[in-house]
Amino acid sequence: MLYQEQLETLIRQLQTELHQMHDRFMEEKDKFNKLEIKYKTLKEQLMQEKKLLRQIIDTSPNLIFIHDSDNRFVLVNQAVVQIYNTSIEKILGQKNDILGFNELDMSSLSQLKKESVLITQEFLVLPTKGTRSFEITRYIIEFKNFKNYTLCVCVDMTDDKLLEEKHDSSSKEQAKLREMISNFINITSHEFRTPLTTILSSTELLEKYGKDWTEEKAMFHLNRIQSSVQHMVLMLDNLLFLEDNI
Amino acid sequence: MLYQEQLETLIRQLQTELHQMHDRFMEEKDKFNKLEIKYKTLKEQLMQEKKLLRQIIDTSPNLIFIHDSDNRFVLVNQAVVQIYNTSIEKILGQKNDILGFNELDMSSLSQLKKESVLITQEFLVLPTKGTRSFEITRYIIEFKNFKNYTLCVCVDMTDDKLLEEKHDSSSKEQAKLREMISNFINITSHEFRTPLTTILSSTELLEKYGKDWTEEKAMFHLNRIQSSVQHMVLMLDNLLFLEDNI
Repeated sequence: MLYQEQLETLIRQLQTELHQMHDRFMEEKDKFNKLEIKYKTLKEQLMQEKKLLRQIIDTSPNLIFIHDSDNRFVLVNQAVVQIYNTSIEKILGQKNDILGFNELDMSSLSQLKKESVLITQEFLVLPTKGTRSFEITRYIIEFKNFKNYTLCVCVDMTDDKLLEEKHDSSSKEQAKLREMISNFINITSHEFRTPLTTILSSTELLEKYGKDWTEEKAMFHLNRIQSSVQHMVLMLDNLLFLEDNI
Repeated sequence: MLYQEQLETLIRQLQTELHQMHDRFMEEKDKFNKLEIKYKTLKEQLMQEKKLLRQIIDTSPNLIFIHDSDNRFVLVNQAVVQIYNTSIEKILGQKNDILGFNELDMSSLSQLKKESVLITQEFLVLPTKGTRSFEITRYIIEFKNFKNYTLCVCVDMTDDKLLEEKHDSSSKEQAKLREMISNFINITSHEFRTPLTTILSSTELLEKYGKDWTEEKAMFHLNRIQSSVQHMVLMLDNLLFLEDNI
């Protein structure tokens, strides 16, 4: 009877243990389920965050990309893909010189690390648009816990540069035009004074001595006046010709 | 003895069950631990993704923000915070008119939904920089599974506009200058022809009839020549005066 009692006690113990173990199992299962819900929420959040990041960089007309300290692309936006007529898969992991970027020399890199932003003007040869002038801004950022990744934003400045150049050349042309007028007035004014002086002196001579002169001498002065006038008419014709060439 | 055998069988069953339950418990615990590691990794990833997003939008000099369909800010970058001299906390949840943005009217909004991008030129009054001219690009995006959120990117175009205006006014001035020269040459050329014609005709008359004329009549024509010359000298002086005023 004693053995039987022992057995019964063991059974009760085992039953209690089994219940406890079952409870612990259910508890653990519950913990897992709760964590699984949190995990799914977090996964959804991460997906949204990635989507938002892509939306933000892909809506930009600027070339935006991140490369590691070995100059290999780890992120590129749609603008890069479209302008270089390629795909994200083809670019990721490649060195950035495949897009024609200058390798930064050591001095600019150390400057970049110190100042954390470096702005350069570079020409890029785009397969879709030819050679364009870019303002490239490089920022040192942290990416997946690695420091010294570089975020590059390239803004196409070609049209701005063209406008600036047009403005400069227009200013220069204007200055040239002003100088031309000034020269022209100066020369005209001096070139006209000579024949006018001639006419005046001949007229004065005719006035004073004409009546005592031989016909020949008077004729000489009248011809002088006439040729001076013709010279001035010729200059005026040249003036009109000049006007057509401004 | 039969009862005792039954008890022994039950004990073996219970022990087996307890072992199984323990195994299931351990399995569940293992699943939980594995999920917990994945959860932590994901959490880290989300943190990095958020950090990357902030780094990308915060390095931009452009104003970048997202507002919901009620025009309330749900994300703003550092440029907004700095230019408006405020903080992210103060702006989030506020309506975007606090920054002086135009409320979009219904027609532009429906256009925005159809075309998914709307570009406008707007003036913004910045507390730090006064009134500046912005090109504002609005994109309809999905944000936290809500559709019809708006991503706005505002690029300060003031300096470009100024350059364009300078170029325009410089072009206009140049055209004015050309017209001025043209007018000036035309007028000069015609104004000079009249006295020259007078001189020529008086000289011709003197040449043909001078010897038969009275002294008085000859003097009249010589004076006519002289006053024509004086008139031209005066015009030349005015020309030099004009030059100083170009």
